[in-house]
Amino acid sequence: MPAEFDFIDWLRRRQKPSALVQLPAGDDLAVVNWPAANLLLVGVDQVLDGVHFDSAVHSPRAIGRKVMNRNLSDCAAMACLPAAAVVAAGLPLGCSIDYAKELYLGMEEAGGQFGCEIIGGDTGSWPGKLALSVTILGRSAGIAPITRSGAKAGDQIYLTGKLGGSILGRHMTFRPRIDQARAIASRFTVTAMIDLSDGLSRDLAHICGQSHLAAHLESAKIPIHEDAIELFKRDGIPPLDHALNDGEDHELLFTSPNEIPADLATRIGIMAEGSAITLDNHPLPPRGWQHQL
Amino acid sequence: MPAEFDFIDWLRRRQKPSALVQLPAGDDLAVVNWPAANLLLVGVDQVLDGVHFDSAVHSPRAIGRKVMNRNLSDCAAMACLPAAAVVAAGLPLGCSIDYAKELYLGMEEAGGQFGCEIIGGDTGSWPGKLALSVTILGRSAGIAPITRSGAKAGDQIYLTGKLGGSILGRHMTFRPRIDQARAIASRFTVTAMIDLSDGLSRDLAHICGQSHLAAHLESAKIPIHEDAIELFKRDGIPPLDHALNDGEDHELLFTSPNEIPADLATRIGIMAEGSAITLDNHPLPPRGWQHQL
Repeated sequence: MPAEFDFIDWLRRRQKPSALVQLPAGDDLAVVNWPAANLLLVGVDQVLDGVHFDSAVHSPRAIGRKVMNRNLSDCAAMACLPAAAVVAAGLPLGCSIDYAKELYLGMEEAGGQFGCEIIGGDTGSWPGKLALSVTILGRSAGIAPITRSGAKAGDQIYLTGKLGGSILGRHMTFRPRIDQARAIASRFTVTAMIDLSDGLSRDLAHICGQSHLAAHLESAKIPIHEDAIELFKRDGIPPLDHALNDGEDHELLFTSPNEIPADLATRIGIMAEGSAITLDNHPLPPRGWQHQL
Repeated sequence: MPAEFDFIDWLRRRQKPSALVQLPAGDDLAVVNWPAANLLLVGVDQVLDGVHFDSAVHSPRAIGRKVMNRNLSDCAAMACLPAAAVVAAGLPLGCSIDYAKELYLGMEEAGGQFGCEIIGGDTGSWPGKLALSVTILGRSAGIAPITRSGAKAGDQIYLTGKLGGSILGRHMTFRPRIDQARAIASRFTVTAMIDLSDGLSRDLAHICGQSHLAAHLESAKIPIHEDAIELFKRDGIPPLDHALNDGEDHELLFTSPNEIPADLATRIGIMAEGSAITLDNHPLPPRGWQHQL
């Protein structure tokens, strides 16, 4: 009968030799030779069946890609490079080895695009639904980590890409903006940055709250994704509302005193003294996606 | 209405200042100033409702302690010191903030005994059962990590503590053997080590497999826990069988060419050329706990 350990053997055989990883998955812990002069960044992000994906609809490959890409997007938000990842998977009883391998291949595929290898994991089956979490290790690699708390009054607010309607499919297929984050942060002063997972109105509130500042947006400047327009045709909610409040765009929102070229990011507003968030001088409440406990 | 972000605010306020942690939980990633000359060890271990605990029976404080202690036990198995941890929690819909806090306090309590702080996390509620995973970062701190693969023919096989019957309660309350691991590894040559999570017969097979050696145990030497005797009275399975095959003892099994004092560990057998595992010269099949996929 196929069992957990066969899967772990399979994982172990997929490990590639690496300068960073002294001892890969397969022991109690993996051993990493952390590169000197690099800050270590660490965080965890999970996907849960029925919340972040629907196992009846989405393929295990796509689910695996999504959980890894969410973590890679956190690296983008700090302008660091992903170094390695570990995975915890709670697999429904009766889940096949092939399904588990597809989850892993999805994670491997997403991580592989940025040289991020899976170096450890814990898989178990249970009388529950699929729960998958990835912990990512990032390294600063010459760029000081960019937090949410460093914005200054007078900084411009910028955004990569276009927003809204990710539920039509992009929430499963987005590409983490690591290359853009590194390119922008190496050429310009970036004072605060976040990736848009909960929606612009809510994620901007994080920058404002942690930087103790207000923010003023101009609606005409906000780039609206064609998916937001498509969604408007179905639900009647204006495309701008989708752009402001839909979650899981995974674009970068950042502040800078510099003028950033339009091919890198779009200027959508300005940081100011105070604590209000406004759109065209009217209050903009945070309406993005929030898990209710 | 209480919501996820209130919980994250609460977590953030609990963070203590630390020389290691430059930026704690509350941003996209935590930032750690990794201490030079320390290898970084990393791994993840989860607990799932109905498999590793029963939410109808066990308190959230005890569940939190268990998941952290499982990870700390992995540090013990490598003879490293825990440095920091991140947590992913999939909370059942309707789970109260107080329940989530109790989970966290259990993890904090267990980690705090070894100076291991929680520096990041992802909490979300879902239409599923409680799934909780911890990723631990360990540091070598002057002792080279001890793997499963370094045993040599002729090494003695040692064990800390007594085995069997952990299901009677110890599987929720065990104390990770970090102090013992560091004390033994700093005074003696330890060639291979593992913590007993799946049962002696199965975990010894990991050392044999990864060291490419056989192992010969003496039944009279194996320390049997009084819980194994109590369990025998209930299920009729001999105490020795419980000691050999029950999981979640979380004692240390290790190999050494040295004579280790009896107050530190018990000698239970010897490593040899070959691949067989025997008990009193009869084959001992691995019968420990294995998740079935």
